[in-house]
Amino acid sequence: MSRIVIALGGNALGNTPIEQKRCIDEAAHALVNLIKEGHEIIISHGNGPQVGMIQLAFEKSSKIDEKIVQMDLPECSAMSQGYIGFHLQNGIKKELRKQGMPWQVGTIVTQVVVNGNDPAFSNPTKPIGGYYDEATAKTLMENHPGEVYAEDAGRGWRKMVASPKPVDIVERDSILSLLNQEFIVIACGGGGIPVVIDDNGDYQSVAAVIDKDFASAKLAELVDADFLFILTAIDRVSINWGKPNQTELSEINVKQAQDYCNEGHFAPGSMLPKVEAAIQFAQSGKNRKAVIASLEKASLAIKGLTGTLITDELPIQLVR
Amino acid sequence: MSRIVIALGGNALGNTPIEQKRCIDEAAHALVNLIKEGHEIIISHGNGPQVGMIQLAFEKSSKIDEKIVQMDLPECSAMSQGYIGFHLQNGIKKELRKQGMPWQVGTIVTQVVVNGNDPAFSNPTKPIGGYYDEATAKTLMENHPGEVYAEDAGRGWRKMVASPKPVDIVERDSILSLLNQEFIVIACGGGGIPVVIDDNGDYQSVAAVIDKDFASAKLAELVDADFLFILTAIDRVSINWGKPNQTELSEINVKQAQDYCNEGHFAPGSMLPKVEAAIQFAQSGKNRKAVIASLEKASLAIKGLTGTLITDELPIQLVR
Repeated sequence: MSRIVIALGGNALGNTPIEQKRCIDEAAHALVNLIKEGHEIIISHGNGPQVGMIQLAFEKSSKIDEKIVQMDLPECSAMSQGYIGFHLQNGIKKELRKQGMPWQVGTIVTQVVVNGNDPAFSNPTKPIGGYYDEATAKTLMENHPGEVYAEDAGRGWRKMVASPKPVDIVERDSILSLLNQEFIVIACGGGGIPVVIDDNGDYQSVAAVIDKDFASAKLAELVDADFLFILTAIDRVSINWGKPNQTELSEINVKQAQDYCNEGHFAPGSMLPKVEAAIQFAQSGKNRKAVIASLEKASLAIKGLTGTLITDELPIQLVR
Repeated sequence: MSRIVIALGGNALGNTPIEQKRCIDEAAHALVNLIKEGHEIIISHGNGPQVGMIQLAFEKSSKIDEKIVQMDLPECSAMSQGYIGFHLQNGIKKELRKQGMPWQVGTIVTQVVVNGNDPAFSNPTKPIGGYYDEATAKTLMENHPGEVYAEDAGRGWRKMVASPKPVDIVERDSILSLLNQEFIVIACGGGGIPVVIDDNGDYQSVAAVIDKDFASAKLAELVDADFLFILTAIDRVSINWGKPNQTELSEINVKQAQDYCNEGHFAPGSMLPKVEAAIQFAQSGKNRKAVIASLEKASLAIKGLTGTLITDELPIQLVR
């Protein structure tokens, strides 16, 4: 039996509540199969499209209705955890019932600690919210010192926020407690609600977005998982993507994975953070393995029949 | 040591994230004092203003931006649990640190089961969302058969939804598991996300709002609590409210409480559901006591120094 942290992509959850329910119904089958095979699972998920929509809804509506206020990113992230967690726990429970399994499933609202000195805070790179023209964006920056807007992939100017690295999980003990009672736990949604520790030792939320793959790697490390599964739309990681010599990878060690990252094989904001998160987890302790695979084939991947396995087989001295 | 379910009013949490944080900072002191005195606490909370704002934000913004979709009430309720739960767990943790207490606190996203045949579904009485003029409301009813709009307290027409009674809590085992590990648990926010059990035995969400006091009474019953604390803005329940013979009640049994309800002493939608929820819990088992008190004086109320205590002291045969 293995303890597996599963990271689901926010883009794989659709753009509306109806799409989200349908996507989860499909995903639930693969997830419950892993439990049926005797594994313990913890599910984390992305929230890119969802948190973007929530923030945009408050941003737009607060301008036309005084009863509505703007919501900051940490609050929007918390809302997305409730919204997605609800559908996940409901859909997984349905699949459990269908397969005659008495397991319980619950969502823990999760705050994730980042370092206030993380260099990401001085170089915000994660686009969120609505699109503006250049003039409006520049006016917004003048009127709101500290806010950064930048051109996003030719589609207009957007607000950019920091994407700092996760260093701890505030609700780790709650997550572990449920997990040790054999509950299926949903946690760290959207990478977690980002908080820094202030001078008093209290958690203060910050306007940032934590990458869900890095948060999942940290979660897997803190709950002493055997596997981190990063589930995405493709069966395996490839090098030379889209070229005649494109090659799917079935098993690589962290040294190879790091080399491929350095050689620019993986797209930033897409496959690169997944491979980097996999490396981070594989290096975090003995016998820790990361797998990047497609959601549909998750139970084949745990048997090594598909997916890309990333391990730290070589001695750490050699790898580093 | 007592196990106490505490129901906080959604109106006591303010109307903006900043107000909500401040209200919670103040509430946290009273809540943590109860833990300091050795009690186990579970916190539930209302979400009236918050879920109303969330629904309104999506309703208004979806009309002016195609990237935003309308959100149904269960999804809005789930979002409000994330939003309020995040601030509660953050604020309570801060107070715990200040008092040097190592307790953990976590929010469980909670679905609450209602009966699909509850008469409330044929008589929706709970106003939600924005205000319309009479003509618009009538057009909306014609175009959306099954939706009910009605005049709300002279302020315009609003959509009315059912407020069915809670019968079970889907995540009861998760809540109990954390509680038994001595965690502070936040659950059943906004009365819970309402679900009915369909013919397959699955939970299907329904457009309804469960009264948070009744949901808290059900929660208290299912976790075998000793006390249900319904915290509000006043120190004690009064009969003959606002009249020269207004009388504060310090201790009543369920028979007296029921008589006062029948005599019309308590306002529907305000004190009446609180007293009814208190009666329901006091009658649900031996030695179960309900207290209606002000948040600030919660730790005096547990000692019987303030608040209105409602017990089932008389034999059940006499009471009924």
